[in-house]
Amino acid sequence: MRMVDLIAKKRDGGELTKAEIDFMIKGYTDGDIPDYQMSAMAMALYFKEMTTDERVNLTMAMVKSGDEIDLSAIEGIKVDKHSTGGVGDTTTLILAPLVASVGVPVAKMSGRGLGHTGGTIDKLESVPGFQVEIDGETFNNLVNKNKVSVVGQSGNLTPADKKLYALRDVTATVNSIPLIASSIMSKKIASGADAIVLDVKTGSGAFMKNIEDARALAKAMVDIGNGAGRKTIGVISDMSQPLGFAVGNALEVKEAIDTLNGHGPKDLTELCLTLGSHMVVLANKAKTIEEAREKLQAVIDNKQALETFKVFLASQGGDASVVDDPSRLPKARVTKEVHAPKSGYVAEIVADEVGIAAGMLGAGRMTKTSIIDLAVGVVLNKKVGDFVEKGDSLVTLHTNTEDTKEVEEKLLNAYAIKEEKPADLPLVYDVITE
Amino acid sequence: MRMVDLIAKKRDGGELTKAEIDFMIKGYTDGDIPDYQMSAMAMALYFKEMTTDERVNLTMAMVKSGDEIDLSAIEGIKVDKHSTGGVGDTTTLILAPLVASVGVPVAKMSGRGLGHTGGTIDKLESVPGFQVEIDGETFNNLVNKNKVSVVGQSGNLTPADKKLYALRDVTATVNSIPLIASSIMSKKIASGADAIVLDVKTGSGAFMKNIEDARALAKAMVDIGNGAGRKTIGVISDMSQPLGFAVGNALEVKEAIDTLNGHGPKDLTELCLTLGSHMVVLANKAKTIEEAREKLQAVIDNKQALETFKVFLASQGGDASVVDDPSRLPKARVTKEVHAPKSGYVAEIVADEVGIAAGMLGAGRMTKTSIIDLAVGVVLNKKVGDFVEKGDSLVTLHTNTEDTKEVEEKLLNAYAIKEEKPADLPLVYDVITE
Repeated sequence: MRMVDLIAKKRDGGELTKAEIDFMIKGYTDGDIPDYQMSAMAMALYFKEMTTDERVNLTMAMVKSGDEIDLSAIEGIKVDKHSTGGVGDTTTLILAPLVASVGVPVAKMSGRGLGHTGGTIDKLESVPGFQVEIDGETFNNLVNKNKVSVVGQSGNLTPADKKLYALRDVTATVNSIPLIASSIMSKKIASGADAIVLDVKTGSGAFMKNIEDARALAKAMVDIGNGAGRKTIGVISDMSQPLGFAVGNALEVKEAIDTLNGHGPKDLTELCLTLGSHMVVLANKAKTIEEAREKLQAVIDNKQALETFKVFLASQGGDASVVDDPSRLPKARVTKEVHAPKSGYVAEIVADEVGIAAGMLGAGRMTKTSIIDLAVGVVLNKKVGDFVEKGDSLVTLHTNTEDTKEVEEKLLNAYAIKEEKPADLPLVYDVITE
Repeated sequence: MRMVDLIAKKRDGGELTKAEIDFMIKGYTDGDIPDYQMSAMAMALYFKEMTTDERVNLTMAMVKSGDEIDLSAIEGIKVDKHSTGGVGDTTTLILAPLVASVGVPVAKMSGRGLGHTGGTIDKLESVPGFQVEIDGETFNNLVNKNKVSVVGQSGNLTPADKKLYALRDVTATVNSIPLIASSIMSKKIASGADAIVLDVKTGSGAFMKNIEDARALAKAMVDIGNGAGRKTIGVISDMSQPLGFAVGNALEVKEAIDTLNGHGPKDLTELCLTLGSHMVVLANKAKTIEEAREKLQAVIDNKQALETFKVFLASQGGDASVVDDPSRLPKARVTKEVHAPKSGYVAEIVADEVGIAAGMLGAGRMTKTSIIDLAVGVVLNKKVGDFVEKGDSLVTLHTNTEDTKEVEEKLLNAYAIKEEKPADLPLVYDVITE
C-alpha cells in the first residue's frame, strides 16, 4: 500500500477502506508517512466527502494510536459530556455534581487547553487545595464512592489526532466537519466513555457560526459515536452571547455554586438541565427526559447537588467551605463597572469579544506556558433582551491591573444597544439522536 | 504574510496576488515554507482554478528562483520547441537543422531525463565524438555561425519547479493543468526562449489521453507564454501510435537523417513541417505558415537541411560522415522480426507498450544511474491503417540480448489487427495561438 495512491483515491472521491485508513493513521503516527503526504490528504478530505464508515474507521484508528482509558472498574454506564467550546461555559462544573447526585457515574478527564479562560481543570484549581493529579485506582474508587471525580488528562491519548490536528492547524485544513468530528470523538472514546452527550454551540461565539454547520457537525459526531457503539446525543445550543454571566475561572466556580443552589443564570441553568437530562437517560437512571429533568430539579431543590459538589471538592483535597462562602475563592484586587453609553435594549453581545476581554485581563492562556490569573474576569450584568438605562453597569470587571481602558472599549464594542426589544433567542435549537 | 493564510485563501477559491505567489515560491525554495504546507497548497490548487495572472506569476516566480539563461548575444529571435512527450518522437533532431537552414537561430538546451528512450542529448551522443558539454560563449558563437547548437542543461534552472515537482509526484498533485503548464513554461522561459512552439501530444501514448485535456493544457501554456511576453503557439498532435517508425537512440538518429533527406516517415515529416513552419513564422523568417512551409520543403529538397545537420554535428566534434553513411552509427548485434499472427488491417498500436518494449531492450533509462544502450530499439514496419498478411514483419527488433520473448509478446499485444480498415487518424488536431 502506498500513501500517494490513497491520496489520489480520495482526491478522486473514492472511499477509503478500513485497512487503508489503519495503514494511513498507523504510518503517520509512527512517522513512516511524512507530514507533506498527510497534509495533501487532509486537503483532499476537505474537498471530498467521507462516508460514515470512513469517519468511524478514522476515529477508531486514532483511538487505537495511543492509550485507551479503561473505566471498567467503575460501576454503571459512564456518560461523558463534551462542549465544542464557547465563552463563559460553566456547564461541566455544574453537571458533574448534578448528575452524580442522581446516580450517574462521572469519571471526567479534562485538559487545560488554550483559550480566553482556563479549562475545567484550571477552574477547579481556584478552590484552595484542590488536586487534579490523582492515580487511576484512586480515581476509580472516588467515582465508585462519590459518583464523581475529575482528573487532569494523563497517558498518551490519541497521539495520531494530536499530530494530525497540529498539521491541520498550519495547513488550512481545520475547518472540515468529518475531521473535526473524528478528532473530538476519538478523544471521547479513548477516554473510556460508554455514552456521550455533545453540546454543539452555534452563534457568533462558537466555532460553528451558523445552525446548519452546527447541525452537520452534531450529526457527524452522533453518527460516529453510534457507529462505534457509543450511544451519542448532540444538543445544539446557542452561543450568540456568552452563557451565564461570569467569564473567568474563580468567577465561574462561584456561578456554578449559585446554579447548584438554584439561583444561577436562567440560560446556564436551563442548558445544564437539558444536557443533564440526556446524560441521566443515557446512564439508565431515568426512562424519559421529563423524568430525568424532574430528578435533577429535585437534587437542586433539596441541596443534594450542592452537597455532592462539597464532597467531590473535599475528596480531592479542596476546601469545600468555598461552597458556603464563595468569598474564599481567589479575588481580584479591583472591580470596575462598564457603563451603558445610552438607554435601550441589549440587542447583541458578541461573545468572542467578551472572551477576548476576559483573556486580556489574564483569565486565559494564550500559549502553553502562560500563567492564568484565576481571580480575574468579567461578569455580565445585562444580557440580550434586557433594558438598560444610560449609565447602568453593563459589565463588572474583576481585575488585578489598573489600566483596563482597552478592555472596557472592547466590552462596549461587544454590546449593541437598540431602541427595539430584540426577539427572544432560543437556547436549544435541536437535539440530534441519530 | 503567512503561508497558512494563503492556503486558506486558495482553498476558498480566492486569487493569489503576485506578492503572495512570490512569497510562497521564494519561501518554498529557501526552505522557509515546509513541504507540508506546499503540498496542502498543491492539493488546494488541484481543486480550485488559477487565473491566467496567477499562472503567469507562478511561472515567473519559478523562473526567478534560479539561474536564467541569457541568449542576448545570439542574433535573431530564439524560438524553442517543447514536446509534452511521447514514443518515438524524433522531431527535435530534425527540426534543429531544418529551421536553422532557413535562418532561425536554434539555441537548444536539452536534458537527459528518464524514459523508454533517451533524451535528445542521448540520441545525439550516438554520433561518434559528439560533445554536449560546451561553454556558454562557444554555444553562443556556434549558434551565431551555424544557426544551431544543442547543449546539455547546465546551471541551476528553476529549482522551485524541481522541488515542487518532486513534492507533487508523491502527493497525488501532478495531474493539475495549471501546475503542469507553469512547470513546463518556467523551464522554457528560464532557458532564454523569446518564443515557444509547443507540441502537445494526445492519445494512448501521451500524458494527455484525450483531446479536451490536451487542448486545455495547450491553452494554459499559450496563455502563460503570451502573458509572460513570449509569443507561444500550441500544436495538438496525435500520439495514439508511435510517431515515425524508429524507437531507440541511434535508430532515431538514422530516421532523422532519412527525414532530412526527404524520405522519412510520412507522419514524422508532416509534424516536423507543421511545427517548423510555426517556428519560422515566430522567428520572423516568413510571413505566413504557407510561405514558411515552402521554405522548409525547399531546404529538404535541395539537401541544405542535411548539410546543416552535418555542419552542426561536426561543430560539436561529431563524426558527420554518419549522415551519408548511417551504418557508422552504433548497431545492435542482432535483428529479429516480430511477425503478424494473422492477416488484416493494423487498427491500433498502443504507443506506451512499444515504448516499454524499447525500454526493455535497454534503449531507455529507468533510474538516473541506468546506462543507455544507444544501439538498441525497435523499428515499426507497419503502422495504423496498413494491411498486413499473416507472417509479415510488424516490427524489427534491434537487440544486444538474445532472450527477447517478453519484448516480442509486448509488441504483439500492442498491435490490434482487425478485418476492417480503420478510419484515418488526424496527425494535427488543432493549433492554439491564443
